Amino acid sequence: MKSKTLIKKIGKLSEKYCISVGKEFKLNDIDPGDTLNFKSEDKSKAQELLKGGVEVIASLQDKLYAQDRWAVLLIFQAMDAAGKDSVIKYVMSGINPQGCQVYSFKAPSGEELDHDFLWRCSKNLPERGRIGIFNRSYYEETLIVRVHENILRSQKLPEKLITKNIWDERFQDIRNFEKYLTRNGVTVRKFFLHVSKKEQKKRFIERIDNPEKNWKFSLADLNEREHWQNYMNAYEEMISNTATKEAPWYVVPADNKWFTRIVVASAVIDALTSLNLNYPSVGDDKLKELAEAKNLLQ
Amino acid sequence: MKSKTLIKKIGKLSEKYCISVGKEFKLNDIDPGDTLNFKSEDKSKAQELLKGGVEVIASLQDKLYAQDRWAVLLIFQAMDAAGKDSVIKYVMSGINPQGCQVYSFKAPSGEELDHDFLWRCSKNLPERGRIGIFNRSYYEETLIVRVHENILRSQKLPEKLITKNIWDERFQDIRNFEKYLTRNGVTVRKFFLHVSKKEQKKRFIERIDNPEKNWKFSLADLNEREHWQNYMNAYEEMISNTATKEAPWYVVPADNKWFTRIVVASAVIDALTSLNLNYPSVGDDKLKELAEAKNLLQ
Repeated sequence: MKSKTLIKKIGKLSEKYCISVGKEFKLNDIDPGDTLNFKSEDKSKAQELLKGGVEVIASLQDKLYAQDRWAVLLIFQAMDAAGKDSVIKYVMSGINPQGCQVYSFKAPSGEELDHDFLWRCSKNLPERGRIGIFNRSYYEETLIVRVHENILRSQKLPEKLITKNIWDERFQDIRNFEKYLTRNGVTVRKFFLHVSKKEQKKRFIERIDNPEKNWKFSLADLNEREHWQNYMNAYEEMISNTATKEAPWYVVPADNKWFTRIVVASAVIDALTSLNLNYPSVGDDKLKELAEAKNLLQ
Repeated sequence: MKSKTLIKKIGKLSEKYCISVGKEFKLNDIDPGDTLNFKSEDKSKAQELLKGGVEVIASLQDKLYAQDRWAVLLIFQAMDAAGKDSVIKYVMSGINPQGCQVYSFKAPSGEELDHDFLWRCSKNLPERGRIGIFNRSYYEETLIVRVHENILRSQKLPEKLITKNIWDERFQDIRNFEKYLTRNGVTVRKFFLHVSKKEQKKRFIERIDNPEKNWKFSLADLNEREHWQNYMNAYEEMISNTATKEAPWYVVPADNKWFTRIVVASAVIDALTSLNLNYPSVGDDKLKELAEAKNLLQ
């Protein structure tokens, strides 16, 4: 398939799941099992589309890198086993790792807690010319920290600053931070991989049954499952408060991994094409310099 | 091709170019145009081998990541246009970027010069479970800094420490640093892409003639060419002083990119297989925990 046709075909796939105005957003409006007009027998068609999509991303990323002006930040958030790791693997393998940086944020360290909550993410933002991927991010501060308020109490914030407004304040701080990034050439796209509770159960059992996946599972994952509805509420509020035109959320149906991957690939292609990337063209001075160099070489 | 057959076949390719005892090393012993028993009409066979090799690396890297104990550091050094960027792109694209980190070291910043010469590299070492790639490295401190001693003078070192022993001291410091890394689970492999002066000229002219590659060329690249023999001497001394059993140098013929790539892939496979990687197996306690979790889920 020609790259332009493919961009057209795959580029529209993610549109339906793009939330750029949060106000009326309801999580229930998006079905985790949705696959648009793909049926499960179309899986191999989707895989073909993904393969082409990855090639398109790789070639756009080559220009992004050469141009060295824009950066792209992709943020992934989801419940356990929704497929964050696997979507990163399948959509981004094939990209030149020289132009791609992945950070996985775990529980914050002592040093990190001695700073504001954006600090550790800010430190790891992608350089110009790169695609940066955050596997979890500062959004955890409005998710796990909100569902378990005791975490907030242990985070060394001055007591006085923990008020009933704290979540609204965080949403505002995040919106402002992402606006700032956008103004500085960092294109931000955010992905919530929306998996159903039922599918998560299936995947947990798979991790338990498959010895090669045992290491991925811990009992703690089960505990979080008990707070499922609280998490869904927190995600809904987070998305409705931080979806903006410049930094939209994609709420990606995640019960079918093959579908999740093409939607994410589509959104990444859309973000990259919006930048009108080209190999840097050189000015007259440089052209003269090149001619001179050629002379010297020969 | 089965993965084991391929590992066997590609695994031996790099052996000839591996320098693990530096003492007698002479750069002239390795021909930049060497392609072993591959002829130029075997190019497509080599590409097939590379494709299989990349898949093997990807699957080994998946285990490295799951195990989260060892790290692998690959260092690339070479003259301009020897193909560092392209070898990183072709050998490492296809690897999950979540487990692969590339750092390109440019001229040191003011902050970096305010530190010892290993500092900026040390800060960017790969985490456990990752493959880290250094595109240039602390070895520049024994190459460009040695060829242009005025750089050394401007690097803020106390005057008293700049003696005639400085290069031997640096070699020793580097050997000790790499021994330390090895003892801490970081497997170090170093690559010098050995291109001929003639082939470099050809590639420079290509960059001048191809508008999409113009941005890669600068007049400064020509200046360095004038110091070719000094650089070759510096490389030879560097390799003979820092090639060790635990952190060998690979002197890779680089006049044919398709050949360079399979040699590097072979060396990477060799490094990874030497670690006997496996998905982490879980102990009895964990197995009990898993069984319990399964019960709770059902």
